[in-house]
Amino acid sequence: MITRFAIIVAGGSGSRMGLDSPKQFLPIGGLPILMHTIRRFRSYSADLQIIVVLPEIQIPVWEALCRQYRFLEPIVVVPGGATRFQSVQNGLAQILNDDGLVTVHDGVRPFVTTDIIRTGFETAERLGSAVTCVALKDSVRLVQPDGSSQAVERANYRLIQTPQTFQLALFKTAFQTVEQPFFTDCASVVEHAGFPITLIDGSYDNIKITTPEDLEISEHKLRLK
Amino acid sequence: MITRFAIIVAGGSGSRMGLDSPKQFLPIGGLPILMHTIRRFRSYSADLQIIVVLPEIQIPVWEALCRQYRFLEPIVVVPGGATRFQSVQNGLAQILNDDGLVTVHDGVRPFVTTDIIRTGFETAERLGSAVTCVALKDSVRLVQPDGSSQAVERANYRLIQTPQTFQLALFKTAFQTVEQPFFTDCASVVEHAGFPITLIDGSYDNIKITTPEDLEISEHKLRLK
Repeated sequence: MITRFAIIVAGGSGSRMGLDSPKQFLPIGGLPILMHTIRRFRSYSADLQIIVVLPEIQIPVWEALCRQYRFLEPIVVVPGGATRFQSVQNGLAQILNDDGLVTVHDGVRPFVTTDIIRTGFETAERLGSAVTCVALKDSVRLVQPDGSSQAVERANYRLIQTPQTFQLALFKTAFQTVEQPFFTDCASVVEHAGFPITLIDGSYDNIKITTPEDLEISEHKLRLK
Repeated sequence: MITRFAIIVAGGSGSRMGLDSPKQFLPIGGLPILMHTIRRFRSYSADLQIIVVLPEIQIPVWEALCRQYRFLEPIVVVPGGATRFQSVQNGLAQILNDDGLVTVHDGVRPFVTTDIIRTGFETAERLGSAVTCVALKDSVRLVQPDGSSQAVERANYRLIQTPQTFQLALFKTAFQTVEQPFFTDCASVVEHAGFPITLIDGSYDNIKITTPEDLEISEHKLRLK
């Protein structure tokens, strides 16, 4: 059995929520978002090694929440960096293996399914990478620096989500680089290192909770399940 | 006062809902979606001339719903065509004026605000067009015919919504053309005719209800207001 790791990045400060509490700690359905997310990965496999990356200042709060909610999942918690790239690097530094697979996921995407996680690992094992995406529902326009814009063929574009799953060897190689401003996700880092990116189907349900409205929607989604 | 028209296109058959009932007739908060949408435009202006485009087969159902809900808004209902382009053409054929302004909106976007509608008309009056859009929250990749993909700079792209508002003269000129497969919205038609497109801010709240899940979310959004 190949060793599998998950790096769950929960670096947000909650500022877009207009709240003091970081969004990943806000409860939906009576449980902090991040705990829902961790449980989805644990449901996939009891053997999965889960690394949670949190801003250092939030770690004591997280530990208090774990006691309060009697959240006993075995996970490793590491402090995040100034950017998402650095946070992933910090998580990756915990993984001593050079073979195996690693999936990276946003802490505030609690609706990921075990099917998507499984497909990610299976695809990355065969092909090196597996990046979840969805088609665009809306028309898309490309904006020029002068403010003008042109319609583009939306069928040629995909919106990228997490999880993004990779063979550890290539992922470690890719992250031994200088951070670039165009590193918006792990796929862009791995691509920059010259490795091919395989896209797999994500889900419209797998939303990233970033606004107060997302939080309301999430509460509601959870009640429907 | 410049004459203002709204063409509300409600052409969906409901097939993506897995339902017999067309989605625009499904109730949210106790009122069919399309009635919510019409009310938003009526709230903007009592003088707005509203044209609703419906599949011909659905018009008797709509009329029955109007009686049932005592929905008395003065609107013109016209039968739709085989495509959205043709439906807009049918709506446009009702407008005899050659000056004035017209806004086109999806019947299943009931959360449009009067502010967005107003900004659309004001901007189109000055600049010819006003097309609502939002920034992309996710990373984006461009997919090639061979299945490979490359990251693109998401800051350069916009997701397009409705309302899309235009000066009537240029809009009529633009729609005197042969339909093209890349006409995904009115902006692409107007652009094809050589007129510039002005983008304005839409809203993430202004969702298009296309799936059963969108319907659940909409129910919930409405209860929050």
